[in-house]
Amino acid sequence: MTTVNAATTTAAREDLAPSENSSAKPAQVRLTRRSPAYWRVTIDNPPVNVMGPEMVREFQEVINAIEADQHVRVVVFDSAVEDFFLNHSDFMAKLEDLTSMPAGPTGLPPWPDFLVRLTRAPVASIALIRGRATGNGSEIALACDMAFASREKAIISQWEVGVGMVAGGGPMARLPQLIGRNRALEVLLSSEDIRGDQAEAYGYVNRALPDAELDAFVETLANRIAEFDKWAIANTKRLVNTSLPPDIELGAGWRELIIWRGKKVRTSSRCRYAQQIEDQLEKLRALGQCTR
Amino acid sequence: MTTVNAATTTAAREDLAPSENSSAKPAQVRLTRRSPAYWRVTIDNPPVNVMGPEMVREFQEVINAIEADQHVRVVVFDSAVEDFFLNHSDFMAKLEDLTSMPAGPTGLPPWPDFLVRLTRAPVASIALIRGRATGNGSEIALACDMAFASREKAIISQWEVGVGMVAGGGPMARLPQLIGRNRALEVLLSSEDIRGDQAEAYGYVNRALPDAELDAFVETLANRIAEFDKWAIANTKRLVNTSLPPDIELGAGWRELIIWRGKKVRTSSRCRYAQQIEDQLEKLRALGQCTR
Amino acid sequence: MTTVNAATTTAAREDLAPSENSSAKPAQVRLTRRSPAYWRVTIDNPPVNVMGPEMVREFQEVINAIEADQHVRVVVFDSAVEDFFLNHSDFMAKLEDLTSMPAGPTGLPPWPDFLVRLTRAPVASIALIRGRATGNGSEIALACDMAFASREKAIISQWEVGVGMVAGGGPMARLPQLIGRNRALEVLLSSEDIRGDQAEAYGYVNRALPDAELDAFVETLANRIAEFDKWAIANTKRLVNTSLPPDIELGAGWRELIIWRGKKVRTSSRCRYAQQIEDQLEKLRALGQCTR
Repeated sequence: MTTVNAATTTAAREDLAPSENSSAKPAQVRLTRRSPAYWRVTIDNPPVNVMGPEMVREFQEVINAIEADQHVRVVVFDSAVEDFFLNHSDFMAKLEDLTSMPAGPTGLPPWPDFLVRLTRAPVASIALIRGRATGNGSEIALACDMAFASREKAIISQWEVGVGMVAGGGPMARLPQLIGRNRALEVLLSSEDIRGDQAEAYGYVNRALPDAELDAFVETLANRIAEFDKWAIANTKRLVNTSLPPDIELGAGWRELIIWRGKKVRTSSRCRYAQQIEDQLEKLRALGQCTR
Repeated sequence: MTTVNAATTTAAREDLAPSENSSAKPAQVRLTRRSPAYWRVTIDNPPVNVMGPEMVREFQEVINAIEADQHVRVVVFDSAVEDFFLNHSDFMAKLEDLTSMPAGPTGLPPWPDFLVRLTRAPVASIALIRGRATGNGSEIALACDMAFASREKAIISQWEVGVGMVAGGGPMARLPQLIGRNRALEVLLSSEDIRGDQAEAYGYVNRALPDAELDAFVETLANRIAEFDKWAIANTKRLVNTSLPPDIELGAGWRELIIWRGKKVRTSSRCRYAQQIEDQLEKLRALGQCTR
Repeated sequence: MTTVNAATTTAAREDLAPSENSSAKPAQVRLTRRSPAYWRVTIDNPPVNVMGPEMVREFQEVINAIEADQHVRVVVFDSAVEDFFLNHSDFMAKLEDLTSMPAGPTGLPPWPDFLVRLTRAPVASIALIRGRATGNGSEIALACDMAFASREKAIISQWEVGVGMVAGGGPMARLPQLIGRNRALEVLLSSEDIRGDQAEAYGYVNRALPDAELDAFVETLANRIAEFDKWAIANTKRLVNTSLPPDIELGAGWRELIIWRGKKVRTSSRCRYAQQIEDQLEKLRALGQCTR
């Protein structure tokens, strides 16, 4: 674990404390300390929770804060935007704003770096999924230690192949171990929307719960674990993590993704490119649904 | 990927084009191009779809054609024989006809070579299982990227231990990752028939569907993926495949199998040996069924 | 396989033969040979089946006997104590009685040594779980090739994190492959009791059966496999076991556990320490239950 770095930890925004960030722009990723042991990270970029370079930067601050703190034992990730947990990337953003960000401590680009560090952080991490968890949203759920989904309102997908891309946050390195190679390839190659029930049946999430019960369930579980010893949590998780493939595999898709985006953006204006992706997504959803 | 080899690709039989093969013997494995992007491979060796050396040779032609083609994105494997998807090996065939076939490009004997190459081919492969998928039939399903089974009519099994054999097509290297070590050992050591519902519950197949819906489901899925970009399919699958054990493990059972068959055939005429196996299979099925 | 060692095999207690052990103390682990091919190992340390150093020593004798025998093909593990399959460690026992036991043939301490050797033994092993399988009980189920649980009466858990410990018998090295990393971490970090139905849904056990059907199901399955060839069972299992992580990972938690126990016992009398653990267990069960 890194030593405490006050500059870093206070840079992580909290909604209970006045922001130290002078910018008037509200945080897209909000860190709330419900107690010293139990934190919430709330994704809040209305109207549809897309992820651009600024959000990636804020996720870096969040993971810096988690790694630096001696007391946090449980972190729950949720969303403040109705119908969206965390969505695809912001295709209107400049590609260079993303590619120019320095690599993280793992040596990987900032997004896979965040995911790897979350996977290895000495705390229990829980994704509370309500609404769409597309691409990045699915990837953050796979990086968390556990994921619980709304039976009625969760939709998970890795839709990248459907628009000609390769996923950038490493689901190819996570899904086969989690749900088996056959279902991993169905999820990835069909690029189909997956509802809560089926995500539970496949083991994509731990459980799907009735939407009305989801918050209380996660709250009880988080409070329970927050009472446990950090040494026991950290060492148990460390030994579980020996089952993971090498961290570098989480970044393998990123390279393919950047090659692909570079090619696309060179052949069209940024605006036209973003429109093309949205059109493809539209078409993808209109394609014959094979989900039961 | 190998370069296009016309001699090889045209050698793969098509039912829509006149066969270039002068032999009057009908193909046991029929390749149909529904479109340049979507192919079907239909197993057709009545009355019970056993696999002998000729069928193995035809599977080699099929995988040569798939690897050589630039346009194919989806291949569905199905059967033209009622009640049998793909059955056990032909025990009446000369063992030498099998052992004398040259190793494939992977260095493995032709059957595990085919399975490894299918697993690694840059296309989406789907097994449509109706009827008995015993031994070889289960192994081809495990080599495909996805498998969908008839709820009423699919029966999957690895029955080899039940007659004193070791499976030759590598289920020991595939099932533990797919369904967990405990269920893999139940499937292999019990040598029990597994029905569609249970195969789905264990994750042995992606899903079991009502027989009346199975064809339409697979057709919709195949057509969907056939619209996607080959580069995205191939690279996504390549990254998923890093989770596989070394290819050589798929051939590890083959050696045991050949040792066993050599021993058996030496101590009995070929005909008596085949009868013995059929008797053992009969006895196996009559043994107390422990499946719920 | 080791050669037959009469001294060792007869040291394993049998309830059908007079015990060669001169002590009047009844065996805590009883080996019954239902036939040369089908053995039962029955755990019997009333009132609650805790595991102390003597039980660990007897498990060593059992695995010596299994390894040394040429005829055994199936071993079923069950319990003679109502409501308990196998429980946590005996915290009243002297820590030195455990740490002073010599390492087993794998080089690991006796408990993880037993678990690794059971995993690798050339026989089919089946856990029949009725009642509480806590800590050690869960670990023996994970070491067996298959596990079948009573729907009404089985409770499985790894409760160690809940009282500040790390599990000593390697569930961190087994659960992620079996049930996926997300559910493995839920089981380990929540330290929650898991009922039969949910254990089946997660793949923690092969199946949960109605309590009234459990014994007959396991009996039928054991008798079926006992008819099969030992060479086929042993070689099939050997090839499945290539999917396991290195054996040393099964002992990784043991070191953490001993460090933890040493620290606790140094700061309190043995009696007070045992009481503290029981109090923590009590509190753990009283904590908000998040299981549906």
